[in-house]
Amino acid sequence: MTQSDWRAQGEAKRQSILNAIPDKWRLKGPVPAATEQRDVTGTYIQQFLNEREVEITESDAVDIVAETTSGRWFAVEVAEAFCHRAAIAHQLVSCLHEIFFDAAIEDAKKLDAYFAEHKAPIGPLHGLPVSLKDQFHIKGVETTMGYVGWIGTFQGQRDDPRRATKESELVRELRNLGAVLYCKTSVPTTLMAGETVNNIIGYTWNPKNRLLSCGGSSGGEGALLALRGSPAGFGTDIGGSVRIPAGFNFLYGLRPSSGRIPYESAANSADGQSTILSVVGPLARTARSLTLLFKAVLSQKPWLHDPLALEIPWRDSIVQDTHSLIEQAKSGTSSLAFGIMPWDGMTPIHPPIARGLRLVEQTLKRLGHKVVPWNPPSHERAHEIASKTFGMDGGADFRHHFNLSGETQAAQVIVQENGAQLTASGIAALNVVKREYQKDYMDYWNSTAAQTGTGRPVDGVFCPLAPHAAVMPEQFKNVGYTSFVNVLDYSSVSIPVTFADKTVDVQGKDSSLSGEYINWDYDADTYDGAPVGVQLFGRRLQEEKMLTIAEYIGEEIARDLKRV
Amino acid sequence: MTQSDWRAQGEAKRQSILNAIPDKWRLKGPVPAATEQRDVTGTYIQQFLNEREVEITESDAVDIVAETTSGRWFAVEVAEAFCHRAAIAHQLVSCLHEIFFDAAIEDAKKLDAYFAEHKAPIGPLHGLPVSLKDQFHIKGVETTMGYVGWIGTFQGQRDDPRRATKESELVRELRNLGAVLYCKTSVPTTLMAGETVNNIIGYTWNPKNRLLSCGGSSGGEGALLALRGSPAGFGTDIGGSVRIPAGFNFLYGLRPSSGRIPYESAANSADGQSTILSVVGPLARTARSLTLLFKAVLSQKPWLHDPLALEIPWRDSIVQDTHSLIEQAKSGTSSLAFGIMPWDGMTPIHPPIARGLRLVEQTLKRLGHKVVPWNPPSHERAHEIASKTFGMDGGADFRHHFNLSGETQAAQVIVQENGAQLTASGIAALNVVKREYQKDYMDYWNSTAAQTGTGRPVDGVFCPLAPHAAVMPEQFKNVGYTSFVNVLDYSSVSIPVTFADKTVDVQGKDSSLSGEYINWDYDADTYDGAPVGVQLFGRRLQEEKMLTIAEYIGEEIARDLKRV
Repeated sequence: MTQSDWRAQGEAKRQSILNAIPDKWRLKGPVPAATEQRDVTGTYIQQFLNEREVEITESDAVDIVAETTSGRWFAVEVAEAFCHRAAIAHQLVSCLHEIFFDAAIEDAKKLDAYFAEHKAPIGPLHGLPVSLKDQFHIKGVETTMGYVGWIGTFQGQRDDPRRATKESELVRELRNLGAVLYCKTSVPTTLMAGETVNNIIGYTWNPKNRLLSCGGSSGGEGALLALRGSPAGFGTDIGGSVRIPAGFNFLYGLRPSSGRIPYESAANSADGQSTILSVVGPLARTARSLTLLFKAVLSQKPWLHDPLALEIPWRDSIVQDTHSLIEQAKSGTSSLAFGIMPWDGMTPIHPPIARGLRLVEQTLKRLGHKVVPWNPPSHERAHEIASKTFGMDGGADFRHHFNLSGETQAAQVIVQENGAQLTASGIAALNVVKREYQKDYMDYWNSTAAQTGTGRPVDGVFCPLAPHAAVMPEQFKNVGYTSFVNVLDYSSVSIPVTFADKTVDVQGKDSSLSGEYINWDYDADTYDGAPVGVQLFGRRLQEEKMLTIAEYIGEEIARDLKRV
Repeated sequence: MTQSDWRAQGEAKRQSILNAIPDKWRLKGPVPAATEQRDVTGTYIQQFLNEREVEITESDAVDIVAETTSGRWFAVEVAEAFCHRAAIAHQLVSCLHEIFFDAAIEDAKKLDAYFAEHKAPIGPLHGLPVSLKDQFHIKGVETTMGYVGWIGTFQGQRDDPRRATKESELVRELRNLGAVLYCKTSVPTTLMAGETVNNIIGYTWNPKNRLLSCGGSSGGEGALLALRGSPAGFGTDIGGSVRIPAGFNFLYGLRPSSGRIPYESAANSADGQSTILSVVGPLARTARSLTLLFKAVLSQKPWLHDPLALEIPWRDSIVQDTHSLIEQAKSGTSSLAFGIMPWDGMTPIHPPIARGLRLVEQTLKRLGHKVVPWNPPSHERAHEIASKTFGMDGGADFRHHFNLSGETQAAQVIVQENGAQLTASGIAALNVVKREYQKDYMDYWNSTAAQTGTGRPVDGVFCPLAPHAAVMPEQFKNVGYTSFVNVLDYSSVSIPVTFADKTVDVQGKDSSLSGEYINWDYDADTYDGAPVGVQLFGRRLQEEKMLTIAEYIGEEIARDLKRV
């Protein structure tokens, strides 16, 4: 295919996405430039919606299902409100790969009919619109994952009968639960980037600050959720791809340990690479919404349908134990204990991120929790393991898919285009190095029991999600702040904290941080207004505990910052 | 190293093992030839022991800990009895790689002192001797895994400070639990063989029929346990290496799904190969002994110390649910349902194995359980996946370790010596093929719900462990009957059934089996007396259920055969 061919094909697909938006929901005038109107969230996007639509779409997932599962709100009304808002969101920041509003309304009608007949919801997500990253297969809908060469195919294979017929296991489970599917969100081609850019939809901007990226690779999810075009969605994370867009868009995002949410029959990059597994995780405005989705999916027993899923149901006992520690902190009899790692020894962070972590620390201390320094095994080791893993096929997988159309690879992709393939012996050695790192980290974690005063090791650790609050295009140098979690296979939640503020987040050495801290490429004006998130991570398979703490601490931070 | 050098080194090590046996326990005369005295178990070995030693060593692990944890038996007396019997066993069939009886007696003395002081055991395995396959590192003890080149090194590395100082995580946990460690058992070099042979100890024979192999790769465990030189031990299984020697020696053996028993800091072959993980599993005379060991290890929370271990504690609720289905079968209100797969479509089985499966079926039917045919996705696919996985490094790992001394590789090793290395892309493709096979098998399993009449899919499936009851040297062609379980990562238990009997297990086409059945290389006379075991397998991570059913069905089979 010549260059003009793949450009034309990408352009045609981009146009077809826009064409899927009903006329009534098309913007009448041009969108103002980012320099004029940086932030298109909140009141900006509200201008295109009626009051009822705003009420519905600004409710979180938990509040929505409270209404839809009790029959107070109709699934159709909720679906239409989110379809409308998602359509506007896409026209503002280019965040959708697939739009199938008609199918969504049909599904919602069936749910309403079911409720009318049975006087009961079909499942805990009855009538909840759920957006999905463009890796999940849905009947009647294409999956391109941003590749021009995948247009009209099944994962790049022409004449494959699974095209637009196959559904991913997660999709099957969401339907069982009563969720309404209506759109798929944008990704960077290859999925290996902290920004979202491809030759179909172009670039997905950060709705809170359109000078910056929405993050990646679940960037379309982040942008759509920031604009409240979705109450909750699912992304995937192999190096930070759920947590980064969550942080960049003032959202909560869960990176579960592998084996909890089913990946079965979803498209992926370098499928079968098993040193670091990509995982599926939810993003939402509130932590309790993440819990709602996570718990609902587990209720479907994914381990009976996905060979990589683990038979670990939702463990309410862990939630209760965690709540009891929180209560003990209130009464001063005991507390939780946290590590805080303000930087990873590799990449200095920007002032807004440093301030975000200080805010977290203040809240923890106000609540009576113990904070201990976090001096883990070198994160550089983790970074090397992740880099070697991501590049183990020398880029062969990406090359194959780019070559289907001849399209060019974006500069943001973090994997070399023409590296050498590792051999079986090389991969085995890498797996051993990885396991040794995991063991060292585990032993270090255990060793903190001597410091916490609680009789236990730390309950979780807070650290940055990235050096910056969102990021300027092509400035995301290193995903080391998130990829170490993937190397460890730990459970981690992004928690929104505050926003970059050029009046307080000024240039200069920040003496409150240990280690060398310099404001490389920080531009207070450009970053002004960008969301600041942090990461809370816990041991492997501790999702119940991390979600419980994230909800609690997130709310307390908001209280301290007078947002509630 | 010249050939005479490695032969001399192997011989010196073999002699040093024998030298570790105290004079008082050395056999005075030569062991009769196998043709004269085929079976050296039971009354044959008892002649070397006193009555009290026989009483102790012929108790199973559960009965032993009942005595030792209540203070009725001293740990020292129990340890001495097993050390003595293990010493005799080794002289009969060459089943030990390491002997450290003195350290065991010292440890047992400490346990007795602890009990005297605290009037309580140190843990649930207080005073229980436990044998270990020669992959586990123990302070003060060498690990050779059968390689001459590992003598005097740490896993082949000279001057490594971990030599004889490092302990495997399982060893640490067993010590916490009160187990007494006293010997390490023989393995085939590379661990990739269904027999046990190496250039140190030579060949480990089957104690029940010394014309045959004890199986492998946990062959020394099998032989030692058959001779009651150990009440329980741990082996490892990547293609059948726990289950095969269990079956060949009339024992129970558990192949758990990966992530339950810690492998951390044990030696291994091709460490880091992660397409099919080797797993650690117990072997013992009784199923309840397997449960004792498995449950005890889980009580140590291995997931806090082994990065590959899963946070899945012992689940008593599964045991209760299974018992309740067993009770319902007694009252005729419901039942368990099983598949029986008499052959795998690849390797025809010998008459004793066919009879063993018929005996199982009779018992199941007598007990009122449902038996359905088992027509799963092709086991040839699983065999291809396993073969490709085991050979993915082209034998580089083995070659390296053989080359340390220049020793030759035994004919029994199932991996080619000079294959090509798979690349990262090749391994990823293999991992996808494996996952697709797992998914197909899972879907097939689910589909049996339509046939069982219980409302559930089958609760487990019975099939052969190998085509033969034990095996004649160099006649083990194919481990497909066990390796498909490793591909699937299912939970599986070997159950002893009966013994080959030349008067009933005669040559000829057996019309009771579906599929082509021919008695390739069956020799009724040679196999006469060899143990016949079968395999019960269940879904992934269903160890609690499989152990419960194995204990129940194993006892009922024994009752039907008038052994109890």
